[in-house]
Amino acid sequence: MHNRKPLLAGVTLLFVWASVASCQKISNRYGIVCDTLMKTGLRSGGTYTLLQELTEQAPHRLAGSSGAARGVELTKQMMQRLGFANVHKESCMVPHWERGPIEKAEILPGGGMRSIHLSVCALGGSIATAANGITAEVVEVRSFDELRELGDRARGKIVFFNRPMDPAKLSTFEAYGGAVDQRGGGAVAAAKAGGVAALVRSVTTAIDDVPHTGAMEYEDTVVPVPAAAVSTIGADRLSDMLKKNPRLRLRLKLTCQTFPDVLSANVVGEITGSERPNEVIIVGGHLDSWDKGVGAHDDGSGCMQAIEAISLIKSVGLTPKRTIRAVMFMNEENGLRGGRAYLIAPERASEKQIAAIESDRGGFAPKGFDVQADSAVFEKVVRWRSLFERIDADRIRRGGSGVDISPMVQNGVPGFGLVVENHRYFDYHHSDNDTIDKVNQRELEMGAIVEALLCYLISEEGL
Amino acid sequence: MHNRKPLLAGVTLLFVWASVASCQKISNRYGIVCDTLMKTGLRSGGTYTLLQELTEQAPHRLAGSSGAARGVELTKQMMQRLGFANVHKESCMVPHWERGPIEKAEILPGGGMRSIHLSVCALGGSIATAANGITAEVVEVRSFDELRELGDRARGKIVFFNRPMDPAKLSTFEAYGGAVDQRGGGAVAAAKAGGVAALVRSVTTAIDDVPHTGAMEYEDTVVPVPAAAVSTIGADRLSDMLKKNPRLRLRLKLTCQTFPDVLSANVVGEITGSERPNEVIIVGGHLDSWDKGVGAHDDGSGCMQAIEAISLIKSVGLTPKRTIRAVMFMNEENGLRGGRAYLIAPERASEKQIAAIESDRGGFAPKGFDVQADSAVFEKVVRWRSLFERIDADRIRRGGSGVDISPMVQNGVPGFGLVVENHRYFDYHHSDNDTIDKVNQRELEMGAIVEALLCYLISEEGL
Repeated sequence: MHNRKPLLAGVTLLFVWASVASCQKISNRYGIVCDTLMKTGLRSGGTYTLLQELTEQAPHRLAGSSGAARGVELTKQMMQRLGFANVHKESCMVPHWERGPIEKAEILPGGGMRSIHLSVCALGGSIATAANGITAEVVEVRSFDELRELGDRARGKIVFFNRPMDPAKLSTFEAYGGAVDQRGGGAVAAAKAGGVAALVRSVTTAIDDVPHTGAMEYEDTVVPVPAAAVSTIGADRLSDMLKKNPRLRLRLKLTCQTFPDVLSANVVGEITGSERPNEVIIVGGHLDSWDKGVGAHDDGSGCMQAIEAISLIKSVGLTPKRTIRAVMFMNEENGLRGGRAYLIAPERASEKQIAAIESDRGGFAPKGFDVQADSAVFEKVVRWRSLFERIDADRIRRGGSGVDISPMVQNGVPGFGLVVENHRYFDYHHSDNDTIDKVNQRELEMGAIVEALLCYLISEEGL
Repeated sequence: MHNRKPLLAGVTLLFVWASVASCQKISNRYGIVCDTLMKTGLRSGGTYTLLQELTEQAPHRLAGSSGAARGVELTKQMMQRLGFANVHKESCMVPHWERGPIEKAEILPGGGMRSIHLSVCALGGSIATAANGITAEVVEVRSFDELRELGDRARGKIVFFNRPMDPAKLSTFEAYGGAVDQRGGGAVAAAKAGGVAALVRSVTTAIDDVPHTGAMEYEDTVVPVPAAAVSTIGADRLSDMLKKNPRLRLRLKLTCQTFPDVLSANVVGEITGSERPNEVIIVGGHLDSWDKGVGAHDDGSGCMQAIEAISLIKSVGLTPKRTIRAVMFMNEENGLRGGRAYLIAPERASEKQIAAIESDRGGFAPKGFDVQADSAVFEKVVRWRSLFERIDADRIRRGGSGVDISPMVQNGVPGFGLVVENHRYFDYHHSDNDTIDKVNQRELEMGAIVEALLCYLISEEGL
């Protein structure tokens, strides 16, 4: 063993040297590009201006809605106005669910207490209640296991899922992942236990009186029951009152409806590659949003950053070798129809998708990106770190990329997910709080700059 | 040369191995401490609760004011309530300047235009105008050089300094540094050019109608003239109007006053070290704030993080070898009297200050810290990086530490400045925008957690 050390060390040194040399070469070649993209982006504030336009002119963009249709036309016009090539729509059918005008939850008077209204909203995809609402007792649980252990005791009741996001987790996405099963699967679990409705604690880090919506699912073999989210303040209040009066009765009324699927579209525009036009780098976000708030962070930010990334590359006069394409994906929130449609559209037959980048974690300060690809791609991208360090976004790690691009990634396309500062995201997510005043212009802009640099490096260096 | 490679490589390998081994040892020894501090801090939300108390009960804490006096008593009570040892005040004399009730700037009607009011506020330390205000023409400049080149043309005029913070800079602190000379030195430069007052574009990244105050200085040999900040919207408007009518007249009225110095204090409390009580690690911020807003970010956040850092260490049951001390420094904004007084207080004679940590860049998500110390200290701290990576704060670089601790650092004490996400800070800084609703609880909490970990590591491992 002793004898092998110098040899091993020699190889190590050679590797270190080669790696340093390669990084220096990259820095020399692209340092000015990086700095120019940053200065131009920060000066222009272009992403924020686009986001103002989107959120003012198409504030609610739930798939199938008139707002989503306006968003499609508006982003097509944006790309045309900015001189993108090959701007067009690629159609897909999407679900069409509407919230309806009435969403009410009232704790009925009794046990010496007066009537109390809780802030609720239907979960996306829920059926309505009967016209007079559902009136029933409430059973509180923190998990599906706890519900199962109740046996018959949930029968005929509204099942109240009250497990909060764990505040002790450093990653709010991890904390979200630890609570969102209640929203997605609460209605089915409630129905299986004989419950008449599901009421779910809003999946948010905020303690306030704003309910947060989001997708929920039914199963073909389980009778559907209505499902609503309650604000965290409402959930805490209901929980307290249940401790005092476990027999309290709640009246829940929802008037949401599902309509037949409608025709919608992804919106696509690009800089066509100067040398390899058929090799395509995607940069995108999802154009649809929930019907609460205006979808400023989720995911107006990601969409406008994608358009601005390409606009920046154009405006600083770069002519990429490969095609860089912005895609506004439709229907991420409740169907992923756009993400699937993109992959199988006829236009794809003559193209090779070489990378897909998505920003869908809010328009906060970027820290870097997660890479969902094989080791060779990961190691190549890691060698570009010194460039991303110049714009304070050098956290390059393995990880998930994005929901819209997941069909591509599953087909072997390297995926990249913009990683941003995440503490605030779930304060706003899927709620009336997701408005543009929660977006900082500089933080938003930096995301577009990071994406522009990554697109351009992949275009010039390949993967 | 060829022969030396294996030897050099062997040394490299040994160094790498030693370094890796040392990091692993640190991770093993303190990994659980780190995770426990994080989980406890994020669950408790203690810093935010303290900051609510401070900003509600002592919202304006300009040195010499009754608010600052309330802040002194309140933070002393907080430390006592949390069971800190050796809680006491250390007195210092501080300046006493008051804004006064009237702050007005009016563009007088003329040239077909009606009268327009601009949002202004006196700069800290400014003299008042005459009782009827100053009415004069305005000359706009972007630099002191440009003002000097004007020669006699600034005589009798209000000098309007309108150089913005450069939005193209990645670091807002760097952009601030590139504009703040106008605020600090504008009055003297205006007076030297024969001007009658200085009106300075607010040193902020925000484009809004809120003026941002801050310190300004006079020189003994230059006649003092009044100095005010104007909002960025006001500055842009005035600049536009000057292009149309260079002879427009502005009336400026300020009623601020300087009073004799008053007695104030730093507030100090600690966990006394179990093995080396006379070796002291400082963690602090400045308790004084401007009289605009409530000083939530600047620097209520840093002060409450210092108290919470010690409270966290206590609440998880650690017994540090060395003394860890929270210091609420008085008068950072317009005098640094507290920072200087701490160093020369009689209590210091029997102590050794071994490190000083400051948080004074807002209560935003921490990224790591800057180290202002010699190479040996820096390299030692860098070996702790894996621990800070666990809490997403592993950006450890050489750099400035903090203004309050600068007298100590100049005396050779290693200084550490908490580095946080900085894009939003100067939107709020020194203005009515600096309120607690701009502080995110989790981001604030993480700062206290990073400080607690750094304090404890220094306490156990030394520097």
